[in-house]
Amino acid sequence: MLYFIGLGLGDCKDITVKGLEIVRQCSRVYLEAYTSILTVGKDALEEYYGRELLLADRDMVEQQADEILKGADVSDVAFLVVGDPFGATTHSDLILRALNAGIQYRVIHNASIMNAVGCCGLQLYNFGETVSIVFWTDTWRPESFYDKIKKNRDMGLHTLCLLQVPSLSRGRKIYEPPRYMTVAQAAEQLLEILQNRRDRGEELAMTQDTVCVGLARVGAENQTIRSGTLQELASSDLGGPLHSMIISGDLHPLEVDMLKLFSGPEGLKTLKMTDSSTYVS
Amino acid sequence: MLYFIGLGLGDCKDITVKGLEIVRQCSRVYLEAYTSILTVGKDALEEYYGRELLLADRDMVEQQADEILKGADVSDVAFLVVGDPFGATTHSDLILRALNAGIQYRVIHNASIMNAVGCCGLQLYNFGETVSIVFWTDTWRPESFYDKIKKNRDMGLHTLCLLQVPSLSRGRKIYEPPRYMTVAQAAEQLLEILQNRRDRGEELAMTQDTVCVGLARVGAENQTIRSGTLQELASSDLGGPLHSMIISGDLHPLEVDMLKLFSGPEGLKTLKMTDSSTYVS
Repeated sequence: MLYFIGLGLGDCKDITVKGLEIVRQCSRVYLEAYTSILTVGKDALEEYYGRELLLADRDMVEQQADEILKGADVSDVAFLVVGDPFGATTHSDLILRALNAGIQYRVIHNASIMNAVGCCGLQLYNFGETVSIVFWTDTWRPESFYDKIKKNRDMGLHTLCLLQVPSLSRGRKIYEPPRYMTVAQAAEQLLEILQNRRDRGEELAMTQDTVCVGLARVGAENQTIRSGTLQELASSDLGGPLHSMIISGDLHPLEVDMLKLFSGPEGLKTLKMTDSSTYVS
Repeated sequence: MLYFIGLGLGDCKDITVKGLEIVRQCSRVYLEAYTSILTVGKDALEEYYGRELLLADRDMVEQQADEILKGADVSDVAFLVVGDPFGATTHSDLILRALNAGIQYRVIHNASIMNAVGCCGLQLYNFGETVSIVFWTDTWRPESFYDKIKKNRDMGLHTLCLLQVPSLSRGRKIYEPPRYMTVAQAAEQLLEILQNRRDRGEELAMTQDTVCVGLARVGAENQTIRSGTLQELASSDLGGPLHSMIISGDLHPLEVDMLKLFSGPEGLKTLKMTDSSTYVS
């Protein structure tokens, strides 16, 4: 059996009881090491689980899947994934390979950023399509995520923005420097896009005063949530990775009350709402 | 401290290690008992946790919150929620009351249906707004969820449909009979709406041949996933609650490969794609 086990978002103890029992009885345990991170490292996980963890980078999962699947038809192999195995990434390819090799699989779910962001008080069923924001380069400055935010806001929906995490360059054994995008960097990019669109005479989906939420290390002891205008978040410092950002859509009064918990003393508490999600002092 | 602890989706052992440790050391433990269910009952949870669980129905949480919060400023109280505390429902009201009373809170996340549906192979970031489908009565036959499905499909996005669960009538101590909506019932309603809209000459967002996914007891040992056309799901029997349904949007080839795993022998395997999400034999 091949077990896909979610580790949740915080530390060693965010694995489920069921997941931990399986980890401890599997013959080999892989740790997927390219999409996300916990606040603790591989060593801490190994010590707590009492098991050696084999790192599975993107190359290995895509090109040496046979290695992972070896013997899983007669013994148990675990594949650990930060968050939920079907959160921001799926592992369809590995599942299909396993089934092709006559190996059954089972999924042990856990929290992922896709549902845990509800902790800021915005209701999950008021979210539209999730977007990804990546670092711009000199020659590659994609703005398509803004258009998705616009569509969501046109329908009154919130947008979860997943921010770039370091990844292994495919096909080459060269690791990028570990660069995690911060909420401030994402907000800066979005402000620049708004300026570009304004220059082109476009009708804007949002302004620098639109209410946004920055989230860092969701689910961890030192989780930080900060609500404020886009402009405010562009100068925020939420500390270490991982960061995510939400662009609000229409806000329900109870959602506003929750967001006020996460604003600074100079923040939303003293602000007046002008439209459903834009505040002015 | 008031702890909001997610129980996950399956049975006793889907709680996280951290969540279980907290449950075992709290002075009182409440079980929220109106939005969702596990495949095991209160007795099984009590035995496994080694703690008495106090049922908190909707009336209690809304009208007798003081009872729940009593003493939580000096001792620890746990509030257990099936799935994630911020999944399909939030508990903002209870959080705000706690903070007003000078009581701190903490959230222990877990899987919810909102992220665990990824197990069918459809990618979470290709989902639009989530909709709810409720039982029609003679006088109340809301169709608004169809319009949301249409908007999602216009953008190529999948739609997660949460199906009605029994709820306690607010304000009166009268429990509705425990009636959980099945995938077949939801599909039937959707077919009827399509017929209504067709009769009115509307351009339809989908047809009876649109690819849908029925999910039952996601995360449990006896989880069942069934992919097929809307028409096929209308005559499906996925067994006991809880059920959810997905209306597909544009399908990526890898998503199609995954959905084929969950179709019957006469199902998608033998079907040809006509547009991005409609199959014909």
